[in-house]
Amino acid sequence: MSITQQIAEFTSETATPQIPAQALRMMQLSFLDWAAVAIAGRDEPVARITREMVLDEGGTPQASLIGHQTRVPARAAALSNGTTSHALDYDDTHFAHIGHPSVAVIPAALAVAEARGIGGADLQAAALIGVEASIRIGVWLGRNHYQTGFHQTATAGAFGAGMAAARLMGLDAQGCAMVLGLLATRASGLKSQFGTMGKPFNAGLAAANGVEAATLVARGFIANPDALESAQGFGPTHAGEQITSALQGLGQQWLFDTISHKFHACCHGLHAVLEAGLTLAPLDAQVIERIEVTTHPRWMTVCNQMAPTTGLGAKFSYGTVLAMQVLGHDTAVLSSYSDTVCADPTVQGLRARVHVTADDSVAETATRLRVVLRDGPVLTASHDLNAPMTLDARQAKIQTKARSLLGEDRATALWSLIAAQADAGQFADGLK
Amino acid sequence: MSITQQIAEFTSETATPQIPAQALRMMQLSFLDWAAVAIAGRDEPVARITREMVLDEGGTPQASLIGHQTRVPARAAALSNGTTSHALDYDDTHFAHIGHPSVAVIPAALAVAEARGIGGADLQAAALIGVEASIRIGVWLGRNHYQTGFHQTATAGAFGAGMAAARLMGLDAQGCAMVLGLLATRASGLKSQFGTMGKPFNAGLAAANGVEAATLVARGFIANPDALESAQGFGPTHAGEQITSALQGLGQQWLFDTISHKFHACCHGLHAVLEAGLTLAPLDAQVIERIEVTTHPRWMTVCNQMAPTTGLGAKFSYGTVLAMQVLGHDTAVLSSYSDTVCADPTVQGLRARVHVTADDSVAETATRLRVVLRDGPVLTASHDLNAPMTLDARQAKIQTKARSLLGEDRATALWSLIAAQADAGQFADGLK
Repeated sequence: MSITQQIAEFTSETATPQIPAQALRMMQLSFLDWAAVAIAGRDEPVARITREMVLDEGGTPQASLIGHQTRVPARAAALSNGTTSHALDYDDTHFAHIGHPSVAVIPAALAVAEARGIGGADLQAAALIGVEASIRIGVWLGRNHYQTGFHQTATAGAFGAGMAAARLMGLDAQGCAMVLGLLATRASGLKSQFGTMGKPFNAGLAAANGVEAATLVARGFIANPDALESAQGFGPTHAGEQITSALQGLGQQWLFDTISHKFHACCHGLHAVLEAGLTLAPLDAQVIERIEVTTHPRWMTVCNQMAPTTGLGAKFSYGTVLAMQVLGHDTAVLSSYSDTVCADPTVQGLRARVHVTADDSVAETATRLRVVLRDGPVLTASHDLNAPMTLDARQAKIQTKARSLLGEDRATALWSLIAAQADAGQFADGLK
Repeated sequence: MSITQQIAEFTSETATPQIPAQALRMMQLSFLDWAAVAIAGRDEPVARITREMVLDEGGTPQASLIGHQTRVPARAAALSNGTTSHALDYDDTHFAHIGHPSVAVIPAALAVAEARGIGGADLQAAALIGVEASIRIGVWLGRNHYQTGFHQTATAGAFGAGMAAARLMGLDAQGCAMVLGLLATRASGLKSQFGTMGKPFNAGLAAANGVEAATLVARGFIANPDALESAQGFGPTHAGEQITSALQGLGQQWLFDTISHKFHACCHGLHAVLEAGLTLAPLDAQVIERIEVTTHPRWMTVCNQMAPTTGLGAKFSYGTVLAMQVLGHDTAVLSSYSDTVCADPTVQGLRARVHVTADDSVAETATRLRVVLRDGPVLTASHDLNAPMTLDARQAKIQTKARSLLGEDRATALWSLIAAQADAGQFADGLK
C-alpha cells in the first residue's frame, strides 16, 4: 500500500476509543506543554506581528487567538497560534522526525475543532493522529531532507496538520489522500530561516497550510492524490529519502511516545547535561575544582560559547548554564538567561572551570558530566534525553515548567481542562 | 551584487516615469488578456471552490473578487483571483521563464493597489516590475528547477508577486530583500499537480504568498534576507541552476517584451501550427488530400491525440484543431472544443488526413505546416511563437480574443480602463 494510502487510512479509520491510554496521555502532556510555551510567547515580536496581520484581515469568528480576545477564521488562527507557540523555541521535539510536532499540529487541530464545536476527546485524538502522521512522514523524508535545508517542522508538519484537520472535518481515506496530495504543492519551509522570525513562522505556515488544504478538499477540490510520493511528487522533489520502513507498525506503535519535552529554556543541546547535573544537586560552587562535560561533536559549534555576555548567548553556553544551575538559578525560567547573569563574577568564576570535550561515541541526545571537587572526590553522572521516563515523572516536570512560565493558578486550570477533555472552545478560551 | 540585491533595487528604485513605453504597453496588453481569461474562467469548479472558501472566511473588505460583489482581504483576493485567472490555462506564457507570469503577479498587484487606493500608472508599473522579477528569477532557477518537478509559475511567481506588492507598499531595497528572503521559506508549487485543480491553484498561492510576505515585512517581520540564494536557500534547495547571467541588463532590457499570448483556447503546443494555418486561410476541406505537420518531439506525447471524443481531448489534438480551423470553427472560443465537434463526421474525415511527425531541429515554439491539395499544388507555411509581432498586431489579436470571450461591450470597456490607467479600484470593479 502506498505511503499516502497508509497515512490516509490511519487518519480516517482509527477510532478514537481505540487509541491507547499511554499515547493519549502523552498527547495531553504535550497539550499542556504547548499551551504553556504558547501563552508565554504571546508577546514576542514575531507573535505580535503575525497576530496583528490576521486581526487586520479579520473575518468570520471561528477560532481563538492566543493573546487576544478576537476570534478569526480557523486558517488564520492556525497561522498565528502556530507561529506564537514556536516563538520561544521551548516546545516539544521529536528527534527521529527531526522536528517540533506539536507547534505545527495542535494549532491546526484546535482551530478546526473550535470552529466546529468539537469535544476534547475528539480534539486530542485528532491532534495525536496528526503528530503521529507528521513524525512518520518526517522519518520517511529522512535526514537527507533536513540536511539539504528543509525544515521538517514546516514540511512534514503541514502534512500532519492537514491530517488532524481532515479527521476533524470527517474526511474519508480518499479525502485524506487528496489533502496530502494538495499539501504536496503547498508545503514549504527552510532551515535557512533559523535565527530569524522565519523559524517560528515555519510552524505557523505548516498549521495554516494544513487547515487550508483540508478546507478546500472538504469543498470538493481535486488535487493529485499521489503527489506526496509520485514521480515529481513532494518526496522526490524535496530530497526525501523515502524510507518506506518509516510507516512500520503505524496504528499499533506510536512514535509520539518518544517525544521529548524541553525542561530548560535554552538550546536543546544543553538539556542532557542539565538533567545529569540535577542528579548531583545540591553542589557547593566553592568546592568545585573543575567540571568536565563530554558531548557529541555536533554541539561544539552550536552551544559551546565560552564567555557570552548576553541572555541569548547564555542559552548557547555549557559553562554558563551549568554555573547557573549550581548557583541556584532556575534554568526553566526564561528571565534567568540575562545579561546580568553573564556579568555576575560568581557565574564567570565557575564557568571558567567548565571544560567541554567532544566524543562521537556519545549520542546526540546524551552528555556525560564529571565534577572534580577540591578535596579529592569526583562525582559523575550522565543523561540521555531518549532515556525512558515514566508518565508520572514527565507530568510532574511539565507541570513544574508550566508553573514556572504561567504561575500556579493558570497552569493548574489548563491541566484541568486538558485532563477533563474539555470542549475545544473551552480549552481555547483558557489560552487567551 | 547578489541576485537578491539586484532584484530588490530594481523593484524599489525604478521610477515609474522611467519605464519604457514599449514595456508598459506590453503590460497593458497582458492586463487585458489576463482580465479576459480571468472573467471567462470565473465559473470553473476550481475558481468557485477557492472563491467560496475565501468568502466563507470573509474579513476586511480590501480588494475585489472576480465573479463576486463582495470584497475580501487583499491576500484572499490574490489567492482567489490568481486561481481563477489560471483556471482555463488560457493566460500568457514566458518560454524562457518557463511559466505564466501574469496570473501570479497581476492578482497580487491589483489586490494591494485596490486596498491602498493606488492609481493605474503605479499599478501597471508595479505589475510590470513584478512580472519582470518573476521572469528573471525563473531564468535564474533554470530548466533544471522545472525538470526536477517545480512549477515556476508558482515558485518564481511568488517572488514576482512579492516584489509587486512590496513596491506598492513603498518598501525600500532592504525591505524588498526581506520579502524575497521570507518568500524563500513560503514559496512552493509542483508540476505533479498538472491535470488537476492544483495547477491553477499554484498561481493563486503564488499571488497570495507574495501579498502575505510583503504585508508581514511592512509590519516589521525579520526573515533571512539572503535566503533566496544563500547556502540552503531557495535556489540551492530547489534544484535551482542559479544562472547569474539571468540578471544581465535588468532595468535596461525587459524580458517581458518577449511574453507570449495564447490566441487559441487549446494546448500551447498547437498554437504555432494554428498561426501557420491562418496564413493559408481560407482552405476548402474538400480539396485537401493531406495535411503534414512537423513539430518538436516534446509535443508528440502532449498534444497529438489522434481521435479524441471529448472537448478536453480536442484541445490536445493536432488533427482536430486543424480540421476545426479549416472548417471555420473559431479556435479562440472555449465552447468550440466540444464532444459534438469531435463526433462531427466532417471533422473526423479531415483530421484522419492530418499526419504529424517529430523533428528535433524544429524549435519548441515553432511548427511547419504542409497542405497537399488533391489537384496537385502544395501549400506551405510555418510559424514560431517567438517571432516578433508589432504591438499593434498583438493588440488587435488580444482585443479579438477578449471579444470572443466577453463580447464586444465588455472587452471594449476593459481596454478603455486599462489604456486610461484608471485607478485600481475602478479597474477591479470592471472584473466583477
